[in-house]
Amino acid sequence: MNRKWQQAVVVANGDYPTHLVPLRYINEASYLISCDGAADQLISKGIIPDFIVGDGDSISLTNKEKYSSIIKIYTEQETNDLTKAITFLMNRGYNDITIVGATGKREDHTLGNISLLMEYIQNIKVKMITDYGIFYPCIDHFQEIITLGSQVSIINFGATHLKTNSLVYPIRDFTNWWQGTLNESSKELVEIDGHGKFLVFVAFK
Amino acid sequence: MNRKWQQAVVVANGDYPTHLVPLRYINEASYLISCDGAADQLISKGIIPDFIVGDGDSISLTNKEKYSSIIKIYTEQETNDLTKAITFLMNRGYNDITIVGATGKREDHTLGNISLLMEYIQNIKVKMITDYGIFYPCIDHFQEIITLGSQVSIINFGATHLKTNSLVYPIRDFTNWWQGTLNESSKELVEIDGHGKFLVFVAFK
Repeated sequence: MNRKWQQAVVVANGDYPTHLVPLRYINEASYLISCDGAADQLISKGIIPDFIVGDGDSISLTNKEKYSSIIKIYTEQETNDLTKAITFLMNRGYNDITIVGATGKREDHTLGNISLLMEYIQNIKVKMITDYGIFYPCIDHFQEIITLGSQVSIINFGATHLKTNSLVYPIRDFTNWWQGTLNESSKELVEIDGHGKFLVFVAFK
Repeated sequence: MNRKWQQAVVVANGDYPTHLVPLRYINEASYLISCDGAADQLISKGIIPDFIVGDGDSISLTNKEKYSSIIKIYTEQETNDLTKAITFLMNRGYNDITIVGATGKREDHTLGNISLLMEYIQNIKVKMITDYGIFYPCIDHFQEIITLGSQVSIINFGATHLKTNSLVYPIRDFTNWWQGTLNESSKELVEIDGHGKFLVFVAFK
């Protein structure tokens, strides 16, 4: 039996996207969630999300009142707004989630949001689209069709036996983030295998 | 015998800084190095660095000719421009280096540059100043006087026995990046101890 994929898009609290690809995901989302820190900007562009999720302290009072029927406030401080949004979606059966607007601004928040992908991937299909490319969290296997010659970076989260025959430069079980950056695809179908978790970034070409 | 600190500032290939703190480091540098990808913008602001270091393919032909006497081109592709600049400085005896302009743009480059701090700290004193705060790579110990109530994040690079009594929330031997984010200083003198490498980010308040 094939798993049924329910797609949704989350707009997170970083810089609002400017690149065509993440913007298209927002415009074409069948189900759109905004973290409350991104809601004012989204609404100012005429886009009303299906729900606004967060701790409720990063949205203007005007919008908080006007859109109160679609705001879900979670006050617990153990998770950030992005995780609140993902949990909200998972509880409603969404299992194929694209995150946009999660980078830019404070770099420690960017690091946090990127690393959360490695938690989410344990339960759902998920990717993050920035103004520069796409982050794919992976367990054991990566497979995507991407433009030949695209810049590809691999950030290892403890995987062993990393191997590929679709990148220009050899890969290994990287122990620091910079080691797996600046590679390039040598085939249209890029496949990377390993035992465990790793993160693949594909830059827009 | 006290070690003599020789200070220098490196402008890297990310977004050119806009915050007052990194801009002040550029303006007040006693010795200023530009990665070649940042040189055009630096020069356009009327600031001529002491040296421009890199692979020479990211600077305009006009500036490449005009400033040929201060350009050092390293063509090897094993290291990025930031590491070429740091190596250049270390070979000249600089051992207290501040990096600015190393984030923004492609997030995989940002991750790479941040992680390189953990290599550099093995040989020199180094920090990275962004538009949002300061990254301090640490081995065993962190100690800085910072504004009370500053947001502090700890990214663990394998350290054990992490402990502090100068942050609001308890810390532990974090295994994923997001776990150590969103803490806050509870004393002006912030000290964090551990066995091994970790990275501390202090957001500007």
